Amino acid sequence: MATGTGSDQLGTGSRGRPPKRIALLGATGSIGRSTVDLLLRNPEAYSVAAIAGGRDHAALARTALAVKAEFVAIRDEDGYAALKEALSGTNIQVAAGREAVIEAATREADLVVSAIVGAAGVEPTHAALELGRVVALANKECLVCAGGPFMRTAQQKKARLLPIDSEHNAIFQALGGEDVSRIEKMTITASGGPFRTWTREAIEAATVEQALNHPNWAMGPKNTIDSASLMNKGLELIEAHHIFAVPAEKLDVVVHPQSIVHGLVSFTDGSVTAGLARPDMRVPIAHCLAYPERIETPAPRLDLVALGALTFEKPDLDRFPALGLALDALREGGALPTVLNAANEIAVEAFLSGRIGFSGIAREVEKALEAALKDGTAREPATVEDALDIDHIVRERSRGALAMNQASGMLTLQ
Amino acid sequence: MATGTGSDQLGTGSRGRPPKRIALLGATGSIGRSTVDLLLRNPEAYSVAAIAGGRDHAALARTALAVKAEFVAIRDEDGYAALKEALSGTNIQVAAGREAVIEAATREADLVVSAIVGAAGVEPTHAALELGRVVALANKECLVCAGGPFMRTAQQKKARLLPIDSEHNAIFQALGGEDVSRIEKMTITASGGPFRTWTREAIEAATVEQALNHPNWAMGPKNTIDSASLMNKGLELIEAHHIFAVPAEKLDVVVHPQSIVHGLVSFTDGSVTAGLARPDMRVPIAHCLAYPERIETPAPRLDLVALGALTFEKPDLDRFPALGLALDALREGGALPTVLNAANEIAVEAFLSGRIGFSGIAREVEKALEAALKDGTAREPATVEDALDIDHIVRERSRGALAMNQASGMLTLQ
Repeated sequence: MATGTGSDQLGTGSRGRPPKRIALLGATGSIGRSTVDLLLRNPEAYSVAAIAGGRDHAALARTALAVKAEFVAIRDEDGYAALKEALSGTNIQVAAGREAVIEAATREADLVVSAIVGAAGVEPTHAALELGRVVALANKECLVCAGGPFMRTAQQKKARLLPIDSEHNAIFQALGGEDVSRIEKMTITASGGPFRTWTREAIEAATVEQALNHPNWAMGPKNTIDSASLMNKGLELIEAHHIFAVPAEKLDVVVHPQSIVHGLVSFTDGSVTAGLARPDMRVPIAHCLAYPERIETPAPRLDLVALGALTFEKPDLDRFPALGLALDALREGGALPTVLNAANEIAVEAFLSGRIGFSGIAREVEKALEAALKDGTAREPATVEDALDIDHIVRERSRGALAMNQASGMLTLQ
Repeated sequence: MATGTGSDQLGTGSRGRPPKRIALLGATGSIGRSTVDLLLRNPEAYSVAAIAGGRDHAALARTALAVKAEFVAIRDEDGYAALKEALSGTNIQVAAGREAVIEAATREADLVVSAIVGAAGVEPTHAALELGRVVALANKECLVCAGGPFMRTAQQKKARLLPIDSEHNAIFQALGGEDVSRIEKMTITASGGPFRTWTREAIEAATVEQALNHPNWAMGPKNTIDSASLMNKGLELIEAHHIFAVPAEKLDVVVHPQSIVHGLVSFTDGSVTAGLARPDMRVPIAHCLAYPERIETPAPRLDLVALGALTFEKPDLDRFPALGLALDALREGGALPTVLNAANEIAVEAFLSGRIGFSGIAREVEKALEAALKDGTAREPATVEDALDIDHIVRERSRGALAMNQASGMLTLQ
């Protein structure tokens, strides 16, 4: 397998086997809630060693009771008292703060589900890798911000990564354990987002509401904007590069508006295998939870005849320059993916709050990449901490640049 | 894996490993020639223990010299002298007759490629299974005529089957070694053939020339007619049932005119994996030759963007009754698939020689199935020999029935 060298022979929670112990990081977010849904549907197959969340103590308490968690961590220390109170009279242990989330990640478990959103997910996920755990990874930052050092730890500690993201999960399934050296091309698909058929000028003038109107997937605003700019596909290529150890030149994106085929692997003999599913995150989550077994899900089933046609187009880097920037960062390597990701997050925030236009996102990212190449920030990060430092520096710098723009814009307006 | 339990750890002929020893049965046919093409492109990876052919002694001699075969068998004893003469002065051993072909199949080899067309392929392939060999199977009769006893031998002798047929090879690759118990559905695709969009009446009146005009694949006349009637998909479902040990109710056919997606596997969690390739038999042959490694082929590569769209339709059992008959035979089991296959071959011969119309093929097959159900011929064959006996009986009976029809038709005309 391409994704680390951990054991295939886990206690997999099938009938007659001991339940698989799960640590769920980010239990109250979208991936976390879908994971809980699947755990509750398969109560005999899983036991929950720990769950962790950010600040929603009420949701965390409900979840802990529902899944019978042994340990609950809340990152926001202000939520500790309310969480402790809600779980009083139970055997569930409660702790708060950064260290508590790391404890949740490192408690004895057969599988750690890493679904904390953003940079906050990197440290606890990395702590699980340090113990050689099997990690089902939904957090993006681990790979796009700190991919190099993150994967080095996984290899050294023989930790195994299972990708939850639908594209990478599809590729993982399509790969079927084959060696990456036999791959000629690895392709992820893009829905094309709401602006797939729009002109460059119309995209320039797109409103926040228009950009948030994704045709196939219900996601948070940040991911939805990234889908509209196709930056999400650039970030996913960077993730694929790290997860599957595939060089940039073998990675490809194809626009596929129906979002049914999520990823394809082309082999040296001309064979291609593909991973397909209706767009429902419970499918890849269930795959990771049960791997190498399978569990049933209530996800809607694929019906090719009902679909009628699957269509494919070349992505247009002229209308979607963010994808081109991500491809450049992937090819150049070093810390450029870290810079790209951080600058993009700040630019998307600025777009969502009305401070820049839609095309401003790619322009801000491009400026950040150029600045990083000039001043040495783009050097390969040696450790996960280095990568997080670069992420922090670029965010500060991007925020500063946007504030300057806005100030000078206001001056111009006077 | 679903297809027997033989070892994965073959000498695979990669650089630095000993060459993989191949026995090639049916060396001068279409699959045999493509196999030879691939062997000659990878001379260091393979050595040829034996080749066997039917009667084309000149082609067999050329092939034996090209691949440096150790042993050559010609089934037609009349060809022996010419073959021996053509190979005089070489170290290549020559033999003729039925036993010689069995010797070719059972010489020490890492992989037996079973590409003899028709019932003649069953006995030597079965002999290879008896020795627990890994068999790359292109011969249809082994499974559609004698599937039950054939697979029992494979299991008892821990012989492994690798499917060469593009649909089954695609499914084998899509399955990626997963257990069949986790499968919800297994789907093979049909191009739909030349009559896909024709009315029932137009199909009734179709000429031999029209039926031989296949849109995607270049095959022999028998297979091309089976593609036009969709009988080929019925036979392939029967094969899939045996190769992958999947019950009839989980098997499905979808019409897919582009012939790019060849097979799909739907899992219990909602995931689907698919095997794709441009229609070129060198792709699945190469997969089997190299398995579990890969070799490069010159086959044209899949380009989804250039294709633009992949479309899917429900097969119409009203216009294509042969597929419905095959589905019935598959569900009923026993010797009905054996009867179906034998009666179909005789009916296709009758169509090709102008003795019956295109729709007469399904009618003749239906009559043969009904007759077999009445007289006990449809009982499950216990051995490969039993199955071949039933095959023989049905062929004789079908020929007789057609002759009677023709005679009474002539009487009517008088």
